Amino acid sequence: MTIQDLLGTFDVQKQGNAMHALMTRLYPICRSITGDGIRETLAELRNQIPFAVEEVPSGTQVFDWTVPKEWNIRDAYIRNAQGEKVVDFKKHTLHVLNYSAPVRAKMSLAELQPHLYSLPEQPEVIPYRTSYYTERWGFCLPHRLREQLPEGEYEVVVDSTLEEGALTYGELFLRGEEEDEVLISTHACHPSLCNDNLSGLVLSTMLAKFLSGVRRRYSYRFLFIPGAIGSITWLARNEATAFRVKHGLVVACVGDSGPMTYKKSRRGNAEIDRAVLHVLEASGTPYRVKDFSPYGYDERQYSSPGFNLAVGSLTRTPHGEFPEYHTSADNLEFVRPEFLGDSLLRYLEVVRLLEGNRKYVNTNPKGEPQLGKRGLYSSLGGNVHAKQLEMAFLWILNLSDGNHSLLDIAERSGVSFSECESAAALLAQHGLLVPSRRAI
Amino acid sequence: MTIQDLLGTFDVQKQGNAMHALMTRLYPICRSITGDGIRETLAELRNQIPFAVEEVPSGTQVFDWTVPKEWNIRDAYIRNAQGEKVVDFKKHTLHVLNYSAPVRAKMSLAELQPHLYSLPEQPEVIPYRTSYYTERWGFCLPHRLREQLPEGEYEVVVDSTLEEGALTYGELFLRGEEEDEVLISTHACHPSLCNDNLSGLVLSTMLAKFLSGVRRRYSYRFLFIPGAIGSITWLARNEATAFRVKHGLVVACVGDSGPMTYKKSRRGNAEIDRAVLHVLEASGTPYRVKDFSPYGYDERQYSSPGFNLAVGSLTRTPHGEFPEYHTSADNLEFVRPEFLGDSLLRYLEVVRLLEGNRKYVNTNPKGEPQLGKRGLYSSLGGNVHAKQLEMAFLWILNLSDGNHSLLDIAERSGVSFSECESAAALLAQHGLLVPSRRAI
Amino acid sequence: MTIQDLLGTFDVQKQGNAMHALMTRLYPICRSITGDGIRETLAELRNQIPFAVEEVPSGTQVFDWTVPKEWNIRDAYIRNAQGEKVVDFKKHTLHVLNYSAPVRAKMSLAELQPHLYSLPEQPEVIPYRTSYYTERWGFCLPHRLREQLPEGEYEVVVDSTLEEGALTYGELFLRGEEEDEVLISTHACHPSLCNDNLSGLVLSTMLAKFLSGVRRRYSYRFLFIPGAIGSITWLARNEATAFRVKHGLVVACVGDSGPMTYKKSRRGNAEIDRAVLHVLEASGTPYRVKDFSPYGYDERQYSSPGFNLAVGSLTRTPHGEFPEYHTSADNLEFVRPEFLGDSLLRYLEVVRLLEGNRKYVNTNPKGEPQLGKRGLYSSLGGNVHAKQLEMAFLWILNLSDGNHSLLDIAERSGVSFSECESAAALLAQHGLLVPSRRAI
Repeated sequence: MTIQDLLGTFDVQKQGNAMHALMTRLYPICRSITGDGIRETLAELRNQIPFAVEEVPSGTQVFDWTVPKEWNIRDAYIRNAQGEKVVDFKKHTLHVLNYSAPVRAKMSLAELQPHLYSLPEQPEVIPYRTSYYTERWGFCLPHRLREQLPEGEYEVVVDSTLEEGALTYGELFLRGEEEDEVLISTHACHPSLCNDNLSGLVLSTMLAKFLSGVRRRYSYRFLFIPGAIGSITWLARNEATAFRVKHGLVVACVGDSGPMTYKKSRRGNAEIDRAVLHVLEASGTPYRVKDFSPYGYDERQYSSPGFNLAVGSLTRTPHGEFPEYHTSADNLEFVRPEFLGDSLLRYLEVVRLLEGNRKYVNTNPKGEPQLGKRGLYSSLGGNVHAKQLEMAFLWILNLSDGNHSLLDIAERSGVSFSECESAAALLAQHGLLVPSRRAI
Repeated sequence: MTIQDLLGTFDVQKQGNAMHALMTRLYPICRSITGDGIRETLAELRNQIPFAVEEVPSGTQVFDWTVPKEWNIRDAYIRNAQGEKVVDFKKHTLHVLNYSAPVRAKMSLAELQPHLYSLPEQPEVIPYRTSYYTERWGFCLPHRLREQLPEGEYEVVVDSTLEEGALTYGELFLRGEEEDEVLISTHACHPSLCNDNLSGLVLSTMLAKFLSGVRRRYSYRFLFIPGAIGSITWLARNEATAFRVKHGLVVACVGDSGPMTYKKSRRGNAEIDRAVLHVLEASGTPYRVKDFSPYGYDERQYSSPGFNLAVGSLTRTPHGEFPEYHTSADNLEFVRPEFLGDSLLRYLEVVRLLEGNRKYVNTNPKGEPQLGKRGLYSSLGGNVHAKQLEMAFLWILNLSDGNHSLLDIAERSGVSFSECESAAALLAQHGLLVPSRRAI
Repeated sequence: MTIQDLLGTFDVQKQGNAMHALMTRLYPICRSITGDGIRETLAELRNQIPFAVEEVPSGTQVFDWTVPKEWNIRDAYIRNAQGEKVVDFKKHTLHVLNYSAPVRAKMSLAELQPHLYSLPEQPEVIPYRTSYYTERWGFCLPHRLREQLPEGEYEVVVDSTLEEGALTYGELFLRGEEEDEVLISTHACHPSLCNDNLSGLVLSTMLAKFLSGVRRRYSYRFLFIPGAIGSITWLARNEATAFRVKHGLVVACVGDSGPMTYKKSRRGNAEIDRAVLHVLEASGTPYRVKDFSPYGYDERQYSSPGFNLAVGSLTRTPHGEFPEYHTSADNLEFVRPEFLGDSLLRYLEVVRLLEGNRKYVNTNPKGEPQLGKRGLYSSLGGNVHAKQLEMAFLWILNLSDGNHSLLDIAERSGVSFSECESAAALLAQHGLLVPSRRAI
């Protein structure tokens, strides 16, 4: 089975539905950068496709960072003077400041206030707040609810633990014909938030499942990791071999209704950049392109100057650009199956382009080869309109001097990549092209 | 005599008339890629300027191709049941499928139909069709005539021969001071078709005649060849020395009323590309520029990756973009003397630019040389407006560091090439410049 | 004291007033390319900041030129038949053709006319004319006055001397931490003309005075020289060390009301070019940019191909583009203190950028360093808006791979240079950056 076959039968709605169903199972889990939430999440994903789960002990030095303590939480609430739970973690994982230190106390509203987080400009939603590297406790709640809290004594409980343990991440490696790797990286540390980033987890999982079943030229590495500390940890543990990653994408925010958005790699014109842009342009639907910036998701770490890997990020609406971002409104209704399926399709198309993008060498570089005698050319000359396949043949033969990849040829000629790929296959079959050993 | 002198007295209408008269003599000949038609054509051109005629035996292997059989034709017609010739090669060479195999047969209209070629969308004209590499017989005719053919028995005769013989082409070499060559290539295989490409044959011939009479820096090579197989044959026979071609143009479609159109070489920014664009821009008339594509005339072969010669194509309306293209409407009325003459003028201007485009080295590179003491500068300072010649002096002195040609300087300064050329001559005369030995 | 401190307290109007006052003292002096006028001018400037005065004997060979004779003038006038001085050098230095040969004669108006210079299109002003390299005598006067001269005998006197002497120029060298130099060059040969170029003399002087009082990374070289022959003389005398000039500006026309205009160096994208453009863009006021041309002021000589120094010219309205140019209307009213002060501020900002523009190397290039534990990062995550300083940190850390200067980073990130500079200083203070030894 080839990836072309797979694309030929791809059903956007069906795949989107399956992705949304998986996301629905992941939604209630309270994830953080460490702890059982991420373990439970990885266990659910491994039902789709098995992969290794790595545990890195707290305190491990990873470059400039230290693997933090493991955080686990059983319960959290604020009870008012009447004994009613006015804020209850069991109702929504966002209610607790993520990675909150444990607390059990009674206090006045005034004492409680510095520990509350809400959004005055979006008074109905619960914000998502974290405090990983400074020990704090706190609660997040809708601003309207916060304003209605009467004076009085409150009981606050965060029944959490912050203890020596491990940082957990998932890693799936699919070996291909070549050692060169394509990296697909997704952060897995957000609690009940769908677009950012359960959508990324389900897309990566489904993509891995598909790729496990096709012939692969490249090797593929999928990472399901806590943001920042996770990619830093992976880089530190794989410092010597990380250079094998020749192309990479960070997956996030792939389930909303916005157009696809590509954030370029630090290099700006790497093959992954050109491949994604070619796919988006060929999709015929609107899309956006952003230059690299060192702010964002884990591409920040992969693009640090000591690695400078060619890793971009392909999303729909980017982080911070939709009002539901990092609030309880980023939920199962906000993310729709049809957009999840469409995003997965684009990822598959990018992979297909990378897989097929080779350099060939014309075996008859002096003058054109005689296509007619091989049945590759219309024998009746004088016709005004050269056929499209013939144009693809001519472009490929003309530019296959070892310096141009099929993507180069597609870009210069205006012939689509898939037509170039088919035409090159035919020419190779007739001995008119051989693969070049030169790197792209 | 210099090419500048020649340009000074060039009479567009007079030259155009001479070109059209020569074309009129060539028009009735039935040319093909081999045979007596091309021999007769070359003989006529050799009345203008003598050159070698090469004969390459059928069956000769030329790269991936084989020199085909020689085709000759005496007569061809379709006679109806009443014995009338309804299609008659003697009335127009286009009536026979070019390179048609011989046939003598009687058949019904239904049997005849697969051998007829016409253009439903242009019912009054005879189309031009060929079948070089698949043996076929056939006739071309106006669609209106075809539709009126009644049922009944037809006698078809193509009195042609396809036999071992030779491929014939003309080659003129004008030696210059340098071994580096400028290639002017024209296809000579089309029968009674004027713009494509009797116009090219007469322009090349007249250009050669002019250049034979002037002092030449470059050597010039003119090829009058059958399309595709001709250039491939020439490349195969001159494989070791073809690299001497530093600049080249394929001449075609230079007699219609459209604006000049330049198709760039595969390299895209070769000196020939910049020279042509400079000339077209300086002409003050509209012109068009097209990027290289591997579809077209013999530039396809010269640009094949094993040669990659810097060969563009300078035409008026390109092939396929005028409705008369490859039909009997591409006739002696469609091509006009004034456009032929204008095209020849542009070719001469391009040659003049190539000839004059040198790199010089400023012999006083530190500070400006004192132009005033050499009478090259207005002695009365403080004048607001620097004169144009002085600006040319300053630009040339400033940029003549061995890295910039006169064309580079003209492009950067906005001073015209001819002003740069005159100014450089004056500076060289005063010892302030010497020619650089570095390649352009 | 740093240049930043200096900029923090810079008072445009106060500095402009001081510059205008200095200009007012220089205005009456009759300068030329040699002679006591330029000596007197340099003496006045040395009251502000002491510097060396160089004397180069007449007849000294300097590249293709020869240091000319020294010109001095005591008086010059035209007296009419009635004994009245109708043109009087004592009333305006422009009345005499600059560098005029001596003359004492009586002649008719017709004989006098070839020695008179006026501007028919600007009949009220005295033009500025020179004749350095052809010995002539002459007078400049308003055209209206010229037209009113009656027939009759005139007595003409130019009481000047053209004798062996010296060419005089001023040179100030401020040593910095590095041997690399910034050149500030100003022509000092124009008589009573304010924008071109007393404005340049006073700006250079004030800039030198400021820079003498701050810590300097670069060494600074200020030249006060006669135009053309002065820079050629300096280059000839400093041929072996001129290469130390890494950045340079020619100062002229910095006192009119027009927008700042930058003429790029011959290199076009040198650091000085990018620095000036960054400063002008950041100024928030309109500005103009012109490509290099070999016509202009002494940048012509510094940019000659044997030196090719990275020297641009930063002016307000360029030479020849204001009607007062090279006439008596370029006077103390035409140049205004506020524009002088504003121009000086831009020069200081350019110097500050050059001084601060370094390459750093990220000492933790693998993954991001943990800013939080160093107090450099907001500890409460999940906030939608990254703060500006944090963005500067991230950009600098990401691009400080030894290949990017702070200016590169500012240009790519959109963060202002001064924010980049402050952020880099903080990072360096925390050991996260060290200066790169690689050249910019």
